[in-house]
Amino acid sequence: MSGNTFGTIFKVTTFGESHGAAMGCVIDGCPAGLELSAADIEKELIRRRPGKAYGSRDEEDEPEILSGVYEGKTLGSPIAIIVRNSNQKSDDYDELKDIYRPGHADFTWQAKYGFRDHRGGGRSSGRETLCRVAAGAVAKKILSLSGIKITAWTSSVAGIQMPSLGEAGFDFEEIERNTLRVPEKNNAQKAMARIEELRSEGDSAGGIISCLVTGAAAGLGEPVFDKLDARLASAVLSIGACKGIEFGAGFAAAGLKGSENNDMLSDNGKITANNCGGILGGISSGQDIFFKAAFKPTPSISKPQKALDSEGRIREIEIKGRHDVCIVPRAVSVVEAMTALVLADFILLARAARL
Amino acid sequence: MSGNTFGTIFKVTTFGESHGAAMGCVIDGCPAGLELSAADIEKELIRRRPGKAYGSRDEEDEPEILSGVYEGKTLGSPIAIIVRNSNQKSDDYDELKDIYRPGHADFTWQAKYGFRDHRGGGRSSGRETLCRVAAGAVAKKILSLSGIKITAWTSSVAGIQMPSLGEAGFDFEEIERNTLRVPEKNNAQKAMARIEELRSEGDSAGGIISCLVTGAAAGLGEPVFDKLDARLASAVLSIGACKGIEFGAGFAAAGLKGSENNDMLSDNGKITANNCGGILGGISSGQDIFFKAAFKPTPSISKPQKALDSEGRIREIEIKGRHDVCIVPRAVSVVEAMTALVLADFILLARAARL
Amino acid sequence: MSGNTFGTIFKVTTFGESHGAAMGCVIDGCPAGLELSAADIEKELIRRRPGKAYGSRDEEDEPEILSGVYEGKTLGSPIAIIVRNSNQKSDDYDELKDIYRPGHADFTWQAKYGFRDHRGGGRSSGRETLCRVAAGAVAKKILSLSGIKITAWTSSVAGIQMPSLGEAGFDFEEIERNTLRVPEKNNAQKAMARIEELRSEGDSAGGIISCLVTGAAAGLGEPVFDKLDARLASAVLSIGACKGIEFGAGFAAAGLKGSENNDMLSDNGKITANNCGGILGGISSGQDIFFKAAFKPTPSISKPQKALDSEGRIREIEIKGRHDVCIVPRAVSVVEAMTALVLADFILLARAARL
Amino acid sequence: MSGNTFGTIFKVTTFGESHGAAMGCVIDGCPAGLELSAADIEKELIRRRPGKAYGSRDEEDEPEILSGVYEGKTLGSPIAIIVRNSNQKSDDYDELKDIYRPGHADFTWQAKYGFRDHRGGGRSSGRETLCRVAAGAVAKKILSLSGIKITAWTSSVAGIQMPSLGEAGFDFEEIERNTLRVPEKNNAQKAMARIEELRSEGDSAGGIISCLVTGAAAGLGEPVFDKLDARLASAVLSIGACKGIEFGAGFAAAGLKGSENNDMLSDNGKITANNCGGILGGISSGQDIFFKAAFKPTPSISKPQKALDSEGRIREIEIKGRHDVCIVPRAVSVVEAMTALVLADFILLARAARL
Repeated sequence: MSGNTFGTIFKVTTFGESHGAAMGCVIDGCPAGLELSAADIEKELIRRRPGKAYGSRDEEDEPEILSGVYEGKTLGSPIAIIVRNSNQKSDDYDELKDIYRPGHADFTWQAKYGFRDHRGGGRSSGRETLCRVAAGAVAKKILSLSGIKITAWTSSVAGIQMPSLGEAGFDFEEIERNTLRVPEKNNAQKAMARIEELRSEGDSAGGIISCLVTGAAAGLGEPVFDKLDARLASAVLSIGACKGIEFGAGFAAAGLKGSENNDMLSDNGKITANNCGGILGGISSGQDIFFKAAFKPTPSISKPQKALDSEGRIREIEIKGRHDVCIVPRAVSVVEAMTALVLADFILLARAARL
Repeated sequence: MSGNTFGTIFKVTTFGESHGAAMGCVIDGCPAGLELSAADIEKELIRRRPGKAYGSRDEEDEPEILSGVYEGKTLGSPIAIIVRNSNQKSDDYDELKDIYRPGHADFTWQAKYGFRDHRGGGRSSGRETLCRVAAGAVAKKILSLSGIKITAWTSSVAGIQMPSLGEAGFDFEEIERNTLRVPEKNNAQKAMARIEELRSEGDSAGGIISCLVTGAAAGLGEPVFDKLDARLASAVLSIGACKGIEFGAGFAAAGLKGSENNDMLSDNGKITANNCGGILGGISSGQDIFFKAAFKPTPSISKPQKALDSEGRIREIEIKGRHDVCIVPRAVSVVEAMTALVLADFILLARAARL
Repeated sequence: MSGNTFGTIFKVTTFGESHGAAMGCVIDGCPAGLELSAADIEKELIRRRPGKAYGSRDEEDEPEILSGVYEGKTLGSPIAIIVRNSNQKSDDYDELKDIYRPGHADFTWQAKYGFRDHRGGGRSSGRETLCRVAAGAVAKKILSLSGIKITAWTSSVAGIQMPSLGEAGFDFEEIERNTLRVPEKNNAQKAMARIEELRSEGDSAGGIISCLVTGAAAGLGEPVFDKLDARLASAVLSIGACKGIEFGAGFAAAGLKGSENNDMLSDNGKITANNCGGILGGISSGQDIFFKAAFKPTPSISKPQKALDSEGRIREIEIKGRHDVCIVPRAVSVVEAMTALVLADFILLARAARL
Repeated sequence: MSGNTFGTIFKVTTFGESHGAAMGCVIDGCPAGLELSAADIEKELIRRRPGKAYGSRDEEDEPEILSGVYEGKTLGSPIAIIVRNSNQKSDDYDELKDIYRPGHADFTWQAKYGFRDHRGGGRSSGRETLCRVAAGAVAKKILSLSGIKITAWTSSVAGIQMPSLGEAGFDFEEIERNTLRVPEKNNAQKAMARIEELRSEGDSAGGIISCLVTGAAAGLGEPVFDKLDARLASAVLSIGACKGIEFGAGFAAAGLKGSENNDMLSDNGKITANNCGGILGGISSGQDIFFKAAFKPTPSISKPQKALDSEGRIREIEIKGRHDVCIVPRAVSVVEAMTALVLADFILLARAARL
C-alpha cells in the first residue's frame, strides 16, 4: 500500500500532482504480445477531456509511452506512460495556500501529511484520473480480446433524470454524440441549460453514472474479500467525487421480497430480470454486469463560502481558477477505466483458479 | 490474492466451509501488547447469532484462540482463531447437489472452480462472516484504545423505514435490545410482524444497515486507490448479500447543488451538515463517519422456484434447510466488523505517513 | 506483510508458537481439483521428524485439514491445516524467561515486540517449520503434475563433506535411507559419530544442504525483483538457522573468467556445465535448478555460556530442554518445502505472462 | 507481483528497457516532509557510473523528479523519477536479434514472454539497476535520519582478494578513491592490471561485494518469511549477476561448532564476534549488519562463443557493443541501494509492531 497501486496481477501505479511536472502511470503485469500505441491511449484521454461547455482547463494531453512496448507490442515488462502538465495557472491558487476549501481534500491531506501541494489540489486533483484512463485504455484492449465491452453513461445530471436502459428514448449511439454523455437528445439539452444556469449562479451540479459490461464470461471475481462487486466498489469509490454505488437492483432490492428479487428462470430458460447485476456470490454469472454510481456536485464553486484557514480562523473565500461546473460527464470515461482495470485483473487471475 | 485476505498491515485471512470441519481466521499484524481473550471474541459472535425468531441454524459457536496470545496479551505474531462447525444438517442439501439455487453463488462458483461443496453453500455461505466478526472483535479492541466507536443498526427492514439518526424516536439504546437491531421500539414490532408474515408465505426480506463511526481522528485513509471510502466500500460489498453502499448524503448528493452539498461552516465554526460522511478526498476529516449499505432479501426461500441444474435442464426446486427469513439484523455485526478491520489497518498505516 | 505470509498467487500464511495450542497454516490460491488428503501432509511431516539420534522432542504430529478440501479434492478455497502441540515441556524453559540465549532470537524479538513467549522460542522456534512442510506437501503435489521433482540432501555436516552430485559415491537412493539425509553411506556413519561426540561435549553442529530441481520448464520466475533466484533466496534464508545461499557455481563463480563461467554449448548442442544453476536473468532456463544453503550450528548447547538478562546483567546459563545437536537433516525437508512454495507460485503466475 | 515492485510500505516500482525511451522508478510510501532534490539522486547515480577503465557505455544520466516533491520536500505521494536513455547504439545489437547470448537472459525471457526487446538486453539489462540506485538514494536519506549508514565495497575481484574488514591494510577512505571500490590501494592496482589483461583477451571477471550497515537499532525485520536476512537476500539476489549471499560467518558457520559460532559475551559485556551478521531470528540485533554477495563474471565477452539461435541451430557469435569487463565495482552502489530499500521499509513497518 500506500494507496497508489491498484490490482494484483494487472497492477497499475499512478503518480503526479496537478501542477507538478507530469502525471503518469506504470502498468505492471500486462501480458506480452498486446498491440499497443500512444494513439490507443490518446483516444481514451480525448474522451475524458472537458467539453468546451464546462469551462475547465484546456488539457491537450499527449501521452508518451516510456517503456514496456517494442515494435508496437507489449513486452510483458512495465508500461510507463506520462503526460506532461502544461497550461497550469498556479497563480490562481496563491490565495488558497493557507485556507481549506469546503468539500475538498485540502484539510484532510494537510491533517494526514502535515504538508501539501495546494496548487490545483495537488495529488487530490481530478487531474489524477487521467492516469486511470490511460491505464484503462490498455485494460480495455485486453478485454476486447475476450469480447468484453464496457459502456458507461450519465444517467442523471443536475437533477435531470435520463431514460433508463431499455426505456423508451434510450439510445446507446447518443452517448458519445453529446458532451454530457447522456443517452437521450432532448434531456441532454435540458440538462445543458440547467448546467449553464448553475454556472451563472456560481454553483455546480452532480449526477449519476450507469455502467454496463457485456460479454463477460461466468467465473470472474475472487471470493471472499475480492469479490467482483467488492473490487468494483473499491475501484469506483476511489474516484474523487463518488459517494455511492449500487449493483443491479441496488438499494431498491432492500425493499423487495426474495421471490421478487431472485432472478427467476422462465419456462424457456430465459432469466426474467437482472436484479443481481450480473454478479452472484461475488462472481460474474455470465449475464450483463450493471451498476450505478453517485457523484456529488463539484465542491469548487465561485459563490462566496466560509472556510477554515491553517490558523484555525474562519474566512470567506471565493474560489477562482477553472473548474468544471459538473464533472460527471468526464467521470464517465474514468468509471469505464476503473471497471476495465478490475476486469483485466480478474481475467488474468481466473487462469489460476483450476489445475 | 485469491481473495481470502483483507488488509495491508492488520491483515485478516479467513477460511472454512459451512459444513466443513471448522471456520477460522488468522490475524497477522496485530500489534504486540493488546489484551485479548476468547471471551472478547465470543462476545461479538453472540451479537451475530440468529435470534430465535429467524429460524436459522442454532450456532453455539465457541471460538478457540490457537496462537498469537500469551498470558492474555497479543505477541505480535499471527492470531489464529477457529470455531468448530457442529449442528450441520448436511442431508438437507442432498437434493441441491446438482441444481443451482436462484440468487445464490451455486452456479457462479461451479463456473469458476469446476467443483464445489454444495452443502450449505460451502465457502459462499453466510456462515463465513463469523470469521469476520471474530477478527473484527480484535480490531475493535485496537480502535477503542484510540477512542473510536462503531455503531451499526438496521435502518430499514422488510420495507419498513426506521427513524433516521437525529430524528424523533431514534434511540441508540434500543438497538441492542431488539433482535432486529432497529433503533426504535414501535417499528421493531411492526417489522417483526411483517417478517413473520413473509416466513409463513415462504418468502424473505432485505433491508438497509446504517453505520456510524465516532472518535476517528482526521487523517485516516490512503490515497488514491485505498481511500477510506473505497476501502469501506470494498469491505462492506464483500459481505454476501450487500448490493450497494453510500457515504454521507450518498445518492441524494447527486441531485444537490454544490452550495447545498458542501459542508459549510457557520460563523461560530460549527459545520452545518455532514453530507461528506466524514470523508474528504478519501481521508477522514475528524467528523463522524457515516454510511448506509443495502442488503438484498435472502435468496433461499421455501416457495417453489424454477432453477437450472448441472445438465442444463430447468427444474422446480423447493429449498429446505434452515434459513434466515432476513439476514439484515445479523449482518449488523458483520458491517461493524468490516468497518473495524478497515480502520485498524489505517490507524497502523497512518504511522508511516510522516517522517 | 507482517511477515507470516509467503507467495503471491499460491499464498501460505503460517501461525503458531512452539508451546501454544497448535501450529498451522492457511494455503490460499491452491487451484481447485487437486487430490489431497491428510495422509499427503503427514507423509512429509514424517520426513521432517527428528531421528532418534538427535535427542529432540518427540513430535507425533497429526495434521488436520480444516477446510478447502471436499470429497478428497481441493475446492479452490483456503486450505487450513493445523497440528496440535503436545508433549511440550514448558517447565524446561522457566529459567529462560528473563534471559536471552546466545545465538537465539530471544533478545531481538523482545526488542521488537516488547513482549514474547519464551517457552521453546515461541514463534521463533524451529517448530514453526512444520507448517512450511505441511504447505510444501500441497505445493509438491502441484509440481508433480508438471513433472517437477525437488530433491534436497545434506551435502556437508559437522565439518564432514559428502561427495558432490555426480561424484563417485553419490547415491540418490541413500538420502532417504539414513537419518542424516546424506547421499553416501560411509560418510554418514562418520558424521553420525562426530555428532554423537559433539552431543557428549554439550556442543552442536551445522552443515550445508544442496537442492536439485528437475523437470522445471524454461520461463519460471518474475523479473526484476521477484526473480526465481531472488525468491528462492528469500524462501530459504527465511528458515531459522540459514546463513547463506548460492546458485550454480555460486561464490566460486566470482573467481572465474566469463569464458569459464558461461555455460557453453558443445558442437552437438549439449550444454557443457550448469554454472548458472538453471537460472538466467532470474528465469528458469529448463536446465536443472541447483543451489546450496549453509546452516549454522544449533545455538542451543548445554555447555555453560554467558548471556544477557532482561535487567542488562551478564549471567551464566546452561540450556536445558531437548535440542537437536544438528538441525540440518531436518531442515532438508524444509528446504524442499520452501522451494516447492516458490515454484508452485511461479507456475501459476506464468499463466499470466502472455496473452 | 509481476516482479517490478519491491517493498511493502516503502514501495519501489521500476520500469524501462535499456534502449527504450527512458528508465525510471516510482517510490510510493515515502513519508511526507523529507528534503529531496534531483541532486540527491544524481549524486548516487554518479557513483554507479562506469569508470573510464571499464569501457562501458558513457551514461550521463540526468534524473528528473516528476512528482511527489514540492518546494524541496516530499509530499507523501508517489515520487516518480525518470532518466532518459541516450547514447544507445542499438545497431550494435542487430546481429543478436535472433540469437541467445550465453550466460544472458535472452533465451529465458524469450521462453517466458515469447517476445523480447533484444537491444542491449532490453529489460534484463544491467542498466535497469540505475532505477534502484535512484530509489536507494531516497531510502538512504530516510536511513540517515535514524543514524544508519550503509557501506559496500569490492572485497574480491578478478580472483584477487582484498584485506577483510578489520585486517591490516583495510581502509574505508580508499573505497571511494579508486574506481574498483576496493579498500586497499596496492591490490587495487594489481586487480586493475588483471582486468586490463582480461579485456585484451576478450574475457571478463567477477568478484565479491561486502556490505556493512552501522547504526541500525535492534528490532528491524518481520518474522517469519520477511526476516531481515531473507529480505536482504531477495534484494541482493535480484541484482542481475549475483549468484550467492552469506550473512556474518556465512558458509563458514556451517563447519563451526555451536560454541564457536554463538556470539558470546565476555565478562565486561562485549560481544566477542559477529558471526550472526547482526541478525538473530531474522531481526536486527543492534550489532553491525554484515553480508557478502558473489557476482559472476560479465557474460558478454568478445571471445567467440557457440550459441543457440531462435531456429534451434548452433551458431558462433562474437558479441559487439560496449560491455563492462567487470561489473562488480558498479554493483557496489546497487548493493547499497537495495540494502537501503530493505531497511527503509522495515523502519516504517516497525512503527506498527507495538501498540
